Amino acid sequence: MTNQKTFISVPIIIHFGDTDPYGVVYFASYFRYCHHGIEAFFKTLGLPPHRYFRNTDKGFGLPVVDASCKFTRPVWYGEELELRVLINSLKEKSITFGFQFYRAGTSEQVAEGEATIVAIGRDWRARSLPNDLREAVEQFLRSGDCPRRAS
Amino acid sequence: MTNQKTFISVPIIIHFGDTDPYGVVYFASYFRYCHHGIEAFFKTLGLPPHRYFRNTDKGFGLPVVDASCKFTRPVWYGEELELRVLINSLKEKSITFGFQFYRAGTSEQVAEGEATIVAIGRDWRARSLPNDLREAVEQFLRSGDCPRRAS
Amino acid sequence: MTNQKTFISVPIIIHFGDTDPYGVVYFASYFRYCHHGIEAFFKTLGLPPHRYFRNTDKGFGLPVVDASCKFTRPVWYGEELELRVLINSLKEKSITFGFQFYRAGTSEQVAEGEATIVAIGRDWRARSLPNDLREAVEQFLRSGDCPRRAS
Amino acid sequence: MTNQKTFISVPIIIHFGDTDPYGVVYFASYFRYCHHGIEAFFKTLGLPPHRYFRNTDKGFGLPVVDASCKFTRPVWYGEELELRVLINSLKEKSITFGFQFYRAGTSEQVAEGEATIVAIGRDWRARSLPNDLREAVEQFLRSGDCPRRAS
Repeated sequence: MTNQKTFISVPIIIHFGDTDPYGVVYFASYFRYCHHGIEAFFKTLGLPPHRYFRNTDKGFGLPVVDASCKFTRPVWYGEELELRVLINSLKEKSITFGFQFYRAGTSEQVAEGEATIVAIGRDWRARSLPNDLREAVEQFLRSGDCPRRAS
Repeated sequence: MTNQKTFISVPIIIHFGDTDPYGVVYFASYFRYCHHGIEAFFKTLGLPPHRYFRNTDKGFGLPVVDASCKFTRPVWYGEELELRVLINSLKEKSITFGFQFYRAGTSEQVAEGEATIVAIGRDWRARSLPNDLREAVEQFLRSGDCPRRAS
Repeated sequence: MTNQKTFISVPIIIHFGDTDPYGVVYFASYFRYCHHGIEAFFKTLGLPPHRYFRNTDKGFGLPVVDASCKFTRPVWYGEELELRVLINSLKEKSITFGFQFYRAGTSEQVAEGEATIVAIGRDWRARSLPNDLREAVEQFLRSGDCPRRAS
Repeated sequence: MTNQKTFISVPIIIHFGDTDPYGVVYFASYFRYCHHGIEAFFKTLGLPPHRYFRNTDKGFGLPVVDASCKFTRPVWYGEELELRVLINSLKEKSITFGFQFYRAGTSEQVAEGEATIVAIGRDWRARSLPNDLREAVEQFLRSGDCPRRAS
């Protein structure tokens, strides 16, 4: 159940502290941007991130269990990026997000990655995704060829 | 009740992400280093930071309520710093830390600042400092002209 | 030459990594936000930050030489902030920015600070501010009681 | 040409800003720690990182071109980690580092990852690794079953 054409578009501003000492965005920053992308994805679907990454009342959390990224082009301070957040995979207990980084306003991809979040219960064991999250992601995937800007 | 001669010496390694895009440590990083300094200070006094910055059982916290720093010399990636953490002021409800940054192994000061933590209760109102913290700081101040390395 | 009524309004999203381990935005993050505010201020005035913080061709830089902030209210992950960037002082060789942090959509101020940037030449000595920067700030100050959103 | 038994051991202190709002080290922080690990690896081999990540005189750089990590156990603020840095692969133009994170003082692995750096020239095209770097890594690999603490 994947749909590569549907994505959330998130503008990324490069700040002091995001680059290496030579002015090039360094690899660890992209993973922070990926997390900003997940947060923007949740918000765009109407799901407040702070009630989903950890929900004490309902007894679940959504930790990232793996992440990877390839960095193909250098990006300098002063540039801006467009991050496209996709759903690479939706499973019973996990969601794998895809991340595509473009130089803003161009079709030049500079990095690409993915990250998987797993639903866990109070005991830190994997459990089914919360229903409202699953439904929101399914609806997003059904929305088809329809890129959206992060809200 | 201050003693400028007593300090905890904390080595600071400059990492990717600590500098501006031109390789110079940028001002916000120094405030992170100051917090590393407070953590090292607590550890050196035998007080685990994670039980003092917020202690749910005993119902207190120690938020920073103000901070300031002057930056007098540029420091580049590849250099190392020595941070000296002092007690500028110990009051009933608050501690003001002093921070002196030196190029490691030299007497050249590159930045200087301070930050105040206030003890608060469960209601986020100011209260007296926890007794064991006060006593540890008082003992530190009595230790006189005796610089210590962070443990 | 100051005008407290004119400011640039910058929305601040609180991300993972901006809070302490208890979910409260920790003090060093505010200084990063202040720098985001200076960047947004430059952009709103039509000055690309990466050509002003350091301009190798024209031989000048604009390092922060001091910064301070008071933190009056706790802010949690899940909240959003409005940062208002003001000019507290414009001098021959320096600009002092003022920063006011509000809970977004409210008049509740949670932190307030300032930071001074000084123009330096290739020799790292203070020099006059670049003319176009000075003129842009003067025009901003003349614009009077007219808050602007960051562009 | 790999040797899983040889590694550099790097102590990792968990700071404010490294955790999510619930006090658990969040995934992006591990990638920053990985970079600290590469820096410590270089230093331990007698190679100053700031002359290797980018060397303007000799016209080479060593950007990270891909990185990945799996996160198997939660780690809280207040804990410490041991990061073991290994060489997973040494090629003509690239080095792949392995990273194993343990709860300090235990054999409990909490995360595992790798990252590849590629040597590039002034034109940002891949080139052979600098000779002294290659030789230092080869010597490290020959040193066999001999863990070392980061210097």
